[in-house]
Amino acid sequence: MSLVISLPAWLELANRRTITFADDSDAMQFVLSLAQRNIDDGGGPFAAAVLSASGTLIAAGVNRVVSAGSSVLHAEMLALMLAQQRIGNHDLSTAGCFTLVTSCAPCAMCLGAIPWSGIQRVVCGARGEDAERIGFDEGDKPDRWRQCLEARRIQVEEDVCREQAVAILQAYQGLGNPLY
Amino acid sequence: MSLVISLPAWLELANRRTITFADDSDAMQFVLSLAQRNIDDGGGPFAAAVLSASGTLIAAGVNRVVSAGSSVLHAEMLALMLAQQRIGNHDLSTAGCFTLVTSCAPCAMCLGAIPWSGIQRVVCGARGEDAERIGFDEGDKPDRWRQCLEARRIQVEEDVCREQAVAILQAYQGLGNPLY
Repeated sequence: MSLVISLPAWLELANRRTITFADDSDAMQFVLSLAQRNIDDGGGPFAAAVLSASGTLIAAGVNRVVSAGSSVLHAEMLALMLAQQRIGNHDLSTAGCFTLVTSCAPCAMCLGAIPWSGIQRVVCGARGEDAERIGFDEGDKPDRWRQCLEARRIQVEEDVCREQAVAILQAYQGLGNPLY
Repeated sequence: MSLVISLPAWLELANRRTITFADDSDAMQFVLSLAQRNIDDGGGPFAAAVLSASGTLIAAGVNRVVSAGSSVLHAEMLALMLAQQRIGNHDLSTAGCFTLVTSCAPCAMCLGAIPWSGIQRVVCGARGEDAERIGFDEGDKPDRWRQCLEARRIQVEEDVCREQAVAILQAYQGLGNPLY
């Protein structure tokens, strides 16, 4: 009864690539392309990636909740788990300053997971209210969640390529796909 | 680059057992025995189990953060993922009314994960402040987290075998084990 989470072939390929991004927007473009690819594959409209301090891709994840039958498998959680598997430590901060780039601000679960992961910087595309506007539930976050992360010395950048990120959410909604 | 989470043999054996518990205390005794077994195996002092409405064990998890190198693998998260794998759906509520029994009140991440899982009842041993008293961080939970769950029609029972649950945390601390 081991737990095996199989990834789609295209995500495995993306994870094997050696890419260094020029800046946050460049990394977000890559993440948004994975969110779009995931929709095309029947998945949720969310993607995330962990980058090293120099902007190199460590691991990318997408929302596999319905396709893998696991409510834990939000894009951020999968990206964090894959990054930790690759780095070989549950605490990424032991190996450097890593950034989590996510197509949408984290829900309550992913927000709670970020401090435990050793991530030191979070870059968000769409806002939580953008996801809620199309019918997703963001959960019960603490008030002023951004300040909660910053109090733990985790930097937060919001609204990076937000318009494009919102357009992907709206396209997903337009297809009549499941909301959860 | 699939994600493979291997479980210790004793946890796999526990998961293969067919057990129906008499009541919450009986189930908590089982969960606390797994927490103790996990300490003896070099793991964290936390365990959890998912039960069916009739009290039958569906899946059990323990804290594998350090041993499996994944900050996501709190006991509750592993129990939920294994239960969903067994039931074959990311939403347990589609298959009945399931209970999560946990040796300690959920941290911010696990708290965020509970509504997404379809769990409809949560039974806690130690309180969050008991874990914090020995040095664990519970994260930034929303104020009145219990009411947040209840507003989502998730029942919460606290302080089930709390003294025994606290004794396990204290024994772990006494051994000089890592806190995270």
